[in-house]
Amino acid sequence: MNRKKLIEEIKKKKSFLCVGLDPDVEKMPKQFLDEEDPIFEFNMAIIDATADYCVAYKPNAAFYEAYGLTGMESLEKTIRYIKANYPDHFVIADAKRGDIGNTAERYAKAFFYRLNADAITVAPYMGSDSVKPFLGFENKWAIVLGLTSNEGAADFQLKAIDHEPLFMNVIRKCADWGTPENMMFVVGATKAEMMGPIRKLVPDHFFLVPGVGTQGGSLEEVCKYGLNKDIGLLVNASRNIIYASNGDDFAEKAAAEAKKLSSQMSMYVK
Amino acid sequence: MNRKKLIEEIKKKKSFLCVGLDPDVEKMPKQFLDEEDPIFEFNMAIIDATADYCVAYKPNAAFYEAYGLTGMESLEKTIRYIKANYPDHFVIADAKRGDIGNTAERYAKAFFYRLNADAITVAPYMGSDSVKPFLGFENKWAIVLGLTSNEGAADFQLKAIDHEPLFMNVIRKCADWGTPENMMFVVGATKAEMMGPIRKLVPDHFFLVPGVGTQGGSLEEVCKYGLNKDIGLLVNASRNIIYASNGDDFAEKAAAEAKKLSSQMSMYVK
Repeated sequence: MNRKKLIEEIKKKKSFLCVGLDPDVEKMPKQFLDEEDPIFEFNMAIIDATADYCVAYKPNAAFYEAYGLTGMESLEKTIRYIKANYPDHFVIADAKRGDIGNTAERYAKAFFYRLNADAITVAPYMGSDSVKPFLGFENKWAIVLGLTSNEGAADFQLKAIDHEPLFMNVIRKCADWGTPENMMFVVGATKAEMMGPIRKLVPDHFFLVPGVGTQGGSLEEVCKYGLNKDIGLLVNASRNIIYASNGDDFAEKAAAEAKKLSSQMSMYVK
Repeated sequence: MNRKKLIEEIKKKKSFLCVGLDPDVEKMPKQFLDEEDPIFEFNMAIIDATADYCVAYKPNAAFYEAYGLTGMESLEKTIRYIKANYPDHFVIADAKRGDIGNTAERYAKAFFYRLNADAITVAPYMGSDSVKPFLGFENKWAIVLGLTSNEGAADFQLKAIDHEPLFMNVIRKCADWGTPENMMFVVGATKAEMMGPIRKLVPDHFFLVPGVGTQGGSLEEVCKYGLNKDIGLLVNASRNIIYASNGDDFAEKAAAEAKKLSSQMSMYVK
């Protein structure tokens, strides 16, 4: 999906919500455990319940890989289901891959073509030859880890390098390698006040924003510092939507939570 | 596998060679293309040919993921084959994963238990809560990216942070989180002269060293700067062994190349 189309979808729905599909058989309603593919069945129910309120889905690859081959199959089926039934939704494979040259290109092909994801999250530590291989695919995106929402972000990302925090240096350099048409940045909601300088540095790039909800980030703060003229935000929520309830009403509760977030977002979408 | 056992194997074989299993159907001998699982069949042949000369195997996950579910199945079968037939060989899943908290723990379980790898490579950008979850598994290892062998390493890893290069800062902090019994570092052979200060910083940790062979790193230099009293090195070679020939003699040529490297190593193993 290209940038123009993504912005159109956001404006049409008045939502920039991304729903994180991080299935955990221990947290999902018991009724799914008897299904042949509990993860896929659960995901379908969540997707059907939330599709009206979000513009993107973000399966985290670890949650699928943890279940081995059957988990990977559930991931393939999940993305296929989204693309078949909700073709206007943007799909992010949250895989945080980082490897070099033709190895990175293999990851790109695996996620962009085999899995048919629109975007993949990418770790920047290995530098240009680990990021650039993800950029040569039409209407596909690399979403580079900039400033993450976890505590450990302080260990390296916040340290000064070239007279600026490492995350600023990463975003500055990566923005040279890609464009606002093929690159986004992960910018955590838990550090919203740091979003201002990032927005100034890369006025046109989309940010994928984790950390609203369970991790304590505030949507209002994120919008204050992160919005640009095209919205420029995909705000992710996972657990507080998909595990809003583990009873029979899980789908209604997930829909209600997604609707609540999307209606909070609607006031920011002109 | 624990550290003591790994050192014993190195001393017994007088080799610290790790063979990288990066299968590419376009590079392997044509005869495999008619097999039901070309990757697994090719890997078995390479493993049988090289097992006498190496102490470790390192499949790079990207090469398997690129072939989707069948590729992941080939990876599972390959590790199972090594563990069943060569149980004294150390297996490294080169997956360069990096995610936080319970997501990272999922990756750890996937690679350590489902795939039965001894070690997984880990990207440090997200900090402590992306590294520590890999450390709580008995006789299993996190191999943290320190200084990589690619050109892009210069983009961030070589930059100064806290008055030292980022890679030194990463290794210093990670060494606080883990021990020489559950953590190794990736240190590229192409920057052997920088290995000296790293060895001084972490005298007891093993280094996984890519970049000898095709990438131009020198074994002599690596040993000069990287050896410690327990050897402390696993030197990886991939393409120059597994694609030494793509004719009928590919296994003999792979064995010869592995033997050559291992005999060069033997003089360093007391």
